[in-house]
Amino acid sequence: MKVLLKVQYMGTAYCGFQCQKNGASIQEVLTRAAGRVFGMPCSVTGCSRTDAGVHALGYVCAVAPADGARGADWCTVPPGKIHRAFAPHLPPDISVCAAAFAPDFFHPRYDAVEKEYIYQIWDAPWETPFFRDRSYHSVRRISPEGLSQMQAAAAAYIGRHDFRAFMAGSAERDTVRTVTRAQVRREDEHMLAFSVSADGFLYNMVRIMAGTLLEVAAGRMMAEDIPMILEMRDRSRAGFTAPPHGLYLREVRYPEEILWQCE
Amino acid sequence: MKVLLKVQYMGTAYCGFQCQKNGASIQEVLTRAAGRVFGMPCSVTGCSRTDAGVHALGYVCAVAPADGARGADWCTVPPGKIHRAFAPHLPPDISVCAAAFAPDFFHPRYDAVEKEYIYQIWDAPWETPFFRDRSYHSVRRISPEGLSQMQAAAAAYIGRHDFRAFMAGSAERDTVRTVTRAQVRREDEHMLAFSVSADGFLYNMVRIMAGTLLEVAAGRMMAEDIPMILEMRDRSRAGFTAPPHGLYLREVRYPEEILWQCE
Repeated sequence: MKVLLKVQYMGTAYCGFQCQKNGASIQEVLTRAAGRVFGMPCSVTGCSRTDAGVHALGYVCAVAPADGARGADWCTVPPGKIHRAFAPHLPPDISVCAAAFAPDFFHPRYDAVEKEYIYQIWDAPWETPFFRDRSYHSVRRISPEGLSQMQAAAAAYIGRHDFRAFMAGSAERDTVRTVTRAQVRREDEHMLAFSVSADGFLYNMVRIMAGTLLEVAAGRMMAEDIPMILEMRDRSRAGFTAPPHGLYLREVRYPEEILWQCE
Repeated sequence: MKVLLKVQYMGTAYCGFQCQKNGASIQEVLTRAAGRVFGMPCSVTGCSRTDAGVHALGYVCAVAPADGARGADWCTVPPGKIHRAFAPHLPPDISVCAAAFAPDFFHPRYDAVEKEYIYQIWDAPWETPFFRDRSYHSVRRISPEGLSQMQAAAAAYIGRHDFRAFMAGSAERDTVRTVTRAQVRREDEHMLAFSVSADGFLYNMVRIMAGTLLEVAAGRMMAEDIPMILEMRDRSRAGFTAPPHGLYLREVRYPEEILWQCE
């Protein structure tokens, strides 16, 4: 048996969920906390590597005893109370918001069938103390026309496409992904949100999609260019890689519903 | 001539806008920054004393040369660019978001005719990293019935009443205020916002109003009790003083429209 955690974190102070380099990772912090909560060395497996500075609203990870199978009874905390057991062992920028039990064969990354990301854009000439490190700052206000161009461009991402032009590096061979939803909305007077769901994402894919939408908003690219950019499969045709601090992993979906609990 | 600033700040690290005690105040930081921006000692007058930990989305203050009248030309920065001149001299938790010119007789506190505050309530069993220090945490979820009770209670605040029961201390003689708007809305899955506008507020008035609404949500007080609490003019009849970190000064209104500029 594994324990699944749904986790929220502000990524600002971390080098990502998982990392080899120096600097604290979310995984390290959760592994240490899980050891204290369950009273034994634990391993924590994540649903995705997030970049340094990227945030999560619904990250999913699995906790299991580090020394392998222990039977079903190694976790004596009821799932609905696990968030409370973790709270005293976590820093203020990481929270467990729900938990569930899952079978041993469950893998939060390989079993995921859909992920949803949000990219937040603050568009005012001044920087706000409330969204520093939490949104991309567009000094220029995005007009209603700019917004509708962004919306048209986002719609062009939807479907099964080869997203090679929207990938950093060249490690991944299979660059075909299915985007099921992509939309841009004005959430507030100075805040836009680009949300996108897909069966999987390539390295930096959402950040390059967001950067491309920002080029469209600025009039340097056109919504009608997106199909051509996808077809050319050439990274240099797409927009810049928008910085990590506007990005949030919002939700991860699995084929079977997970019974998240939190009391 | 005075320069008006519209300011946003996260109050967490400060002892309030103005303070005598040890600890940094927003006023101190702005006074120092204004000195650098305008190249002369300046005085900064605020629209309200906010408590330690209280935030502001639209605080208004006036800047003038410290040594008195200098004529109209002491400020050579166009109002639309003042926010940019301040940015390098302010910490990340304080921003100038717009500026305007005002006549010498303008006083941001005495000339204000209406203020609007928001009190944010996060209602989930778990604490979120994104709203710590930015909302009151109600561990218990507020039900739709609880919310409609809060809405009914908030509606009872509206009107011209003696708000002595909703004031800390006893310094103020005239405790009659006119509340022009008071409502509670669910903003998000786990976030409620109480917003209230009045011609003025007594010391801790919004925090006691919010605490009373939280008692109503918990079923310990009833919406129907509010008129009686107002009438009794007895602090002990109202609810607890909700903590400062859920509170935001949202807007201050003046009889004549201020031409805020920001490019």
